[in-house]
Amino acid sequence: MASTLDIRTQNLKKPVTVAEYLFNRLHQMGVRSVHGLPGDYNLVALDYLPSCNLKWVGSVNELNASYAADGYARVKGISALITTFGVGELSAINGIAGAYSEMVPVVHIVGCPNTASQKNGLMLHHTLGNGDFNVFADMSALVSCAVAKLNDPAEIATQIDHTLRECYMQSRPVYLMLPTDMIEAKVEGDRLTQPIDLREPENDEEKEDYVVEVMLRYIHAAKKPVVLADACSIRHRVVDELHAFIEKTKLPTFVTPMGKGAVNEELEIFGGVYVGNASHPEVQEMVESSDLVITVGGLKSDFNTAGFSYRLSQLNTIDLHSYSCGVRYSEYPGVKMRGVLKKLTERIDLSQLTVTPVTPTQYLKGIEPTANGADDGVITQEWLWPRVSTFLKKNDIVVTETGTANFGIWDTKFREGVSGLNQTLWGSIGWAVGACQGAALANKDGDMNRRTILFEGDGSFQLTAQEVTTMIRHNLDIILFVICNDGYTIERFIHGMDAEYNDIVTWDYKATVDVFGGAGNPNVKKYVVKTKNELSTLMKEDDFNNRKGLRFVELYMPRDDAPRSLISTANAAAARNASK
Amino acid sequence: MASTLDIRTQNLKKPVTVAEYLFNRLHQMGVRSVHGLPGDYNLVALDYLPSCNLKWVGSVNELNASYAADGYARVKGISALITTFGVGELSAINGIAGAYSEMVPVVHIVGCPNTASQKNGLMLHHTLGNGDFNVFADMSALVSCAVAKLNDPAEIATQIDHTLRECYMQSRPVYLMLPTDMIEAKVEGDRLTQPIDLREPENDEEKEDYVVEVMLRYIHAAKKPVVLADACSIRHRVVDELHAFIEKTKLPTFVTPMGKGAVNEELEIFGGVYVGNASHPEVQEMVESSDLVITVGGLKSDFNTAGFSYRLSQLNTIDLHSYSCGVRYSEYPGVKMRGVLKKLTERIDLSQLTVTPVTPTQYLKGIEPTANGADDGVITQEWLWPRVSTFLKKNDIVVTETGTANFGIWDTKFREGVSGLNQTLWGSIGWAVGACQGAALANKDGDMNRRTILFEGDGSFQLTAQEVTTMIRHNLDIILFVICNDGYTIERFIHGMDAEYNDIVTWDYKATVDVFGGAGNPNVKKYVVKTKNELSTLMKEDDFNNRKGLRFVELYMPRDDAPRSLISTANAAAARNASK
Repeated sequence: MASTLDIRTQNLKKPVTVAEYLFNRLHQMGVRSVHGLPGDYNLVALDYLPSCNLKWVGSVNELNASYAADGYARVKGISALITTFGVGELSAINGIAGAYSEMVPVVHIVGCPNTASQKNGLMLHHTLGNGDFNVFADMSALVSCAVAKLNDPAEIATQIDHTLRECYMQSRPVYLMLPTDMIEAKVEGDRLTQPIDLREPENDEEKEDYVVEVMLRYIHAAKKPVVLADACSIRHRVVDELHAFIEKTKLPTFVTPMGKGAVNEELEIFGGVYVGNASHPEVQEMVESSDLVITVGGLKSDFNTAGFSYRLSQLNTIDLHSYSCGVRYSEYPGVKMRGVLKKLTERIDLSQLTVTPVTPTQYLKGIEPTANGADDGVITQEWLWPRVSTFLKKNDIVVTETGTANFGIWDTKFREGVSGLNQTLWGSIGWAVGACQGAALANKDGDMNRRTILFEGDGSFQLTAQEVTTMIRHNLDIILFVICNDGYTIERFIHGMDAEYNDIVTWDYKATVDVFGGAGNPNVKKYVVKTKNELSTLMKEDDFNNRKGLRFVELYMPRDDAPRSLISTANAAAARNASK
Repeated sequence: MASTLDIRTQNLKKPVTVAEYLFNRLHQMGVRSVHGLPGDYNLVALDYLPSCNLKWVGSVNELNASYAADGYARVKGISALITTFGVGELSAINGIAGAYSEMVPVVHIVGCPNTASQKNGLMLHHTLGNGDFNVFADMSALVSCAVAKLNDPAEIATQIDHTLRECYMQSRPVYLMLPTDMIEAKVEGDRLTQPIDLREPENDEEKEDYVVEVMLRYIHAAKKPVVLADACSIRHRVVDELHAFIEKTKLPTFVTPMGKGAVNEELEIFGGVYVGNASHPEVQEMVESSDLVITVGGLKSDFNTAGFSYRLSQLNTIDLHSYSCGVRYSEYPGVKMRGVLKKLTERIDLSQLTVTPVTPTQYLKGIEPTANGADDGVITQEWLWPRVSTFLKKNDIVVTETGTANFGIWDTKFREGVSGLNQTLWGSIGWAVGACQGAALANKDGDMNRRTILFEGDGSFQLTAQEVTTMIRHNLDIILFVICNDGYTIERFIHGMDAEYNDIVTWDYKATVDVFGGAGNPNVKKYVVKTKNELSTLMKEDDFNNRKGLRFVELYMPRDDAPRSLISTANAAAARNASK
């Protein structure tokens, strides 16, 4: 066996270790920091990070690390996570499943026992004791778009290139199983001079032309066409093509909750957040009275549609997806939206287009600063979220936790370039703390100079609180609001408003930063805010807005208060749970 | 459909809801507290806990909850965990896999979307968005000994009884998928008058007699027979039968690391911890010079054998397992150890038995208090663990984390009735904090009046630190030592002694108790210990030993120090990782 390897190595033009090959590929794709925890099956690999210009994050636990990798990928385009066999990877699998569900490209590298131990079925630590070394890969395969077991040096470079390409193209996690004896096996480094081809294959031209022609016929004929941008326009990276289309056509454009951030909300054509019955009435009227809704990257999950409450006819719909397009009931599998959007923009005849201008609705006006005078009262959900609009700056990254924040943010108007990170489909509470860390780190790694702002619930914060230590460790610039309202508010509104199981222990939230390594650190500052006035003042404060490091805000709000959108969505969920 | 259900309900003698049926069964089996987190798919079920005399723990996150359920089951015999679909259950799956690997009976109940939504493949929150509602059950099936999808009221009572029985009998986790529309479906409550039959089927008598006869022939003939008690003697509940055997025969008896606690170490026949080359030399000599080693519940994993370093011949071995027995190379599948142990005890002829008395070895003497004088020096691993022997009381529950504590504890002599909880096979760091909470709660629920003592590493503590809040919430009696030695010591000794990836952020560990809800609580007390004298004094302090509530000790030890047993096991692991 050793001699076979040697012969192969001799034939390599530029031998590099598997670790170097993999890490160089990650670097080429934009990764600069790698999340994860050390474990004895991955330690030797970690030695190769610095020479490949990758930084080791040193996360506090694997679940947090996977959430952080998710946040990092949403900002930087892709991310990597290294865990150890069994114990480490399974702690991360909820985060990976979330990235799969929400279409976020995370490369999960699992250090595992050497190939000989696997073949011999040894009863090693971190195994089930049954000699089965594939069981965890089998689990991960269900939440990964590609899996590679790197067992043969002759195949590994090809496996890595294929897997990383799938990760990016499908925008979903991949799983790489790296045995300890393969970490330093040699592969062809000469391949690295050619980056992995990440270009999306073009649509079949004739088919694409046909689809575009059909679409244009309906668009030109429509009396009140509108555009609805959803999650997959962000996840499948057609935001530029989308903007070219709406800025040329001036069609009224709306976003779904998961599509929030896809569209520059400062454009005059921006009409607000459409989410069926939970929309503001004027928004709902504008969208549902349209005779042609062009959805871009639609993802019609329950929470993204307020319980499937759209009142749109498929006869009035054009759907653009990453894998197909549709016009009314006609489907065009394999015709991907990017090419279609580009051609629609090129070929649309503005003279044939009927454009209904967006009249600034009460909703859009309502979230202007003037309509939100401050006073000394308690901070209500209804008051808070429009108020956040004036706090946000261009290009901010806003992370919202599943719960009141995720629904409340629908009422916040974003400035140009603001990204909204949320996990509306998967909805794992605690995600946002990790994701925020990853997002802020991505921002730092990319010298993007964006602010990262987190709105977190107190109940959710408790699940993943220790990720604050990683924020401090890497001196990340984060504004972190913990909404202190005594428990799992979203659950209360679904079932058990006063039930003990929706209560939590009251923590000294702001003190977590001291405990987790921030005591005496001048880059860490704590705040407590209990009234509207206090919050308005803080949000205007120069030091708070512009200082570096972590700003940790305890934001007190009433226990039984929730955004109206949460209440209607929670009612729909409760009704479905109870139905036979 | 509704009418079918109604007809069925009318035929029930004593209709009860599925939730009540399940919870009553859990109560009958010894569960008193249920771990888990609320989620909208399980909320309605939680309403039924109080009337079934079950307490809701209200854990801080699902991973911690699963670890705690593991600890609870190890002390109370079985435990239950309730999570929500997708996000909750996957966060717990590492803990469940650990319970599977280590053979701990945990009932995992997952609240999931209603059967109609599943049939229709709705794109609900907490799904992958692909309409597949079985994917998480498929994952859990790989780490459960039984899975039941409770979709049909006519089947549910039978499914529950079968699954719970498997959980107990196989001593491994089971998975119950409970749709929201089944929580309050009616099943036959009359069945509850008859508890689930948990008796182990007897061995075939003729076969058992044969095996016992063969064994006795070798035992009677042996010149120096010894007994080695391992993990499965505890997990498969033959500790009483084992004691009857060794107390009658007076055979020298040893334990493995995972078997520690199976045998009363105050017995004169107790010889110490056998773990191959990592044994104390006298212990290794005593076991390896034996011409007949009777292993009870053997589990020969790498860390339980110091890297497979036993030097025992199969020709000198009798193996007693929960599923089979073996004599030399003869195997007897299906012959379970309980019946065999009983008959061996009944039928052994003491007059034919050669008993070599255990001469108190240097090791056993060395861990007597007198040999461990205190001084003002730093606390070394070598000094600490023998010193713990004199701190322990009868019936203490000692939880040790994977890392220095798990290896160090081999040098601690247990008093009678002491239980040692460790996760030597699965080895997921952070487990011990959760497991300790569960163990202490089990002790409280069972009015056992045992102390629960945790030895935790600082690196490991960071993964699951927030479980301290649950300890405080339920006012549990726990002595918690955090070994403050700056990072992942076990990893350092495997690879990367000074590598950055083995470093952690220094926390203010003792302050976590204040942050997590313990500030001002008279039942919470903090301590800092840096020298041998300080620790000896503290360990003798009446208040420290006997007070109620949480005693949180920061125990400072040098970074690069480790128990000798850890060093030899780590070296073996590093060598295997590097080998081709």
